[in-house]
Amino acid sequence: MFIYQTRVRLRDTDATGVLYFSEQFNFAMEAFEEFLKVRGFSLRELMNTPYLLPVVHAEADYLSPLMVGDVLEINMQVSKIGSSSVTLEYTFFDLTRRADAGKAQIVHVVVDKETRRPTPIPDFLRSLLEGG
Amino acid sequence: MFIYQTRVRLRDTDATGVLYFSEQFNFAMEAFEEFLKVRGFSLRELMNTPYLLPVVHAEADYLSPLMVGDVLEINMQVSKIGSSSVTLEYTFFDLTRRADAGKAQIVHVVVDKETRRPTPIPDFLRSLLEGG
Amino acid sequence: MFIYQTRVRLRDTDATGVLYFSEQFNFAMEAFEEFLKVRGFSLRELMNTPYLLPVVHAEADYLSPLMVGDVLEINMQVSKIGSSSVTLEYTFFDLTRRADAGKAQIVHVVVDKETRRPTPIPDFLRSLLEGG
Amino acid sequence: MFIYQTRVRLRDTDATGVLYFSEQFNFAMEAFEEFLKVRGFSLRELMNTPYLLPVVHAEADYLSPLMVGDVLEINMQVSKIGSSSVTLEYTFFDLTRRADAGKAQIVHVVVDKETRRPTPIPDFLRSLLEGG
Repeated sequence: MFIYQTRVRLRDTDATGVLYFSEQFNFAMEAFEEFLKVRGFSLRELMNTPYLLPVVHAEADYLSPLMVGDVLEINMQVSKIGSSSVTLEYTFFDLTRRADAGKAQIVHVVVDKETRRPTPIPDFLRSLLEGG
Repeated sequence: MFIYQTRVRLRDTDATGVLYFSEQFNFAMEAFEEFLKVRGFSLRELMNTPYLLPVVHAEADYLSPLMVGDVLEINMQVSKIGSSSVTLEYTFFDLTRRADAGKAQIVHVVVDKETRRPTPIPDFLRSLLEGG
Repeated sequence: MFIYQTRVRLRDTDATGVLYFSEQFNFAMEAFEEFLKVRGFSLRELMNTPYLLPVVHAEADYLSPLMVGDVLEINMQVSKIGSSSVTLEYTFFDLTRRADAGKAQIVHVVVDKETRRPTPIPDFLRSLLEGG
Repeated sequence: MFIYQTRVRLRDTDATGVLYFSEQFNFAMEAFEEFLKVRGFSLRELMNTPYLLPVVHAEADYLSPLMVGDVLEINMQVSKIGSSSVTLEYTFFDLTRRADAGKAQIVHVVVDKETRRPTPIPDFLRSLLEGG
């Protein structure tokens, strides 16, 4: 379980007054980038390996509206590690309003940077994701 | 079935060289906004009614990478109309590369603008969505 | 003079109800990408040359608020071509509201993709910009 | 002088491998939102007053490319307070690379929320901006 806090910015909202829905995925990705850095292997370093980690599936539920300035606590969990894919689960809690804001699931697949075809998860990445 | 074409812009891509995943949801929303306009009741006009149409669920699959300049054909379909929700299905086809790029499903719920609580779909919106 | 039309999307707005200011720069860039394509050498193709065209200066004035659904007419002009830089001027006109929405100036510099250092504008790009 | 740190995310970059230029304005706005909060009157609270603070002018210089994961230190300064406008100056320093990344100037004007016309800066906002 990895916990990350961020804040809703004006740019994340839309004219209906609340968070624009796809920004919740951006918050999830931001948490994952932070997770990688904390585990000692940043996305930047990953981009210098022969691998990439594109998203093949993403889904989210929206439970209550987020507003500009709200402090958001994101819980991230590595829920499944396959041979070449990893599934991440996220929950979003609005600390300002004390309300569940939503959840998300994002599936990444490890691909070879040149061919963009799936490839087995390399050991360094597997142990990082397993928290070893 | 509503068809909409757009083009991948530099701003939609990221440093891995391809479309940043959440932008596919933005393309879907762009198609829906165009659909509403073509059906004679734009999002702007909708925002002047007592209703809003927030997203309560969104999911997408990514089948092949989209690159800057690619022309994207989006097919949108109203797949289910409930008492207060509507489910939209999207497919994304890369006309430049002749490849299926992905698909998406987005569920909106009609809410009262003041209370933000679900409310039955008003008739004008139901007939618009049903294509009447 | 190059003319390009686009439309303000929900995602371009913020919780104050109007266009989020930096989106005007994105519209300018979108017009420039279209200009390059119409002139027969897309940004995508440019990215396969040894050159890149990063922005070194950008400025904009905002004259009236743009709202979701507004149709925007962008006029782009190549106002100055230096040895390694090019200055583009943009005006934004809100066709829906019949109002000047703003203007922008963006200066790009041609750099070597490997070193990221300025380099003379190659002939193919100079003649494209000069409209030859 | 107000100092704010943030980090370049994948979503902020584009297919040329570096920060997409307009994101630098978003970082500036993020710093300003943080400044308001620290001074005890958040943007959210401001949106509940009869005032808004739209941008009327924005400009930026780009000195060196920012890459995903780079830690950015932003220095913000209130450089001029007019009768209804305020000018903010920003510098961006890349702590990861120890390089000046750029600077920006953003001019906001205080407007009446209903009429969207300029109005004198209210006292609470003036003293907040003056650091009183």
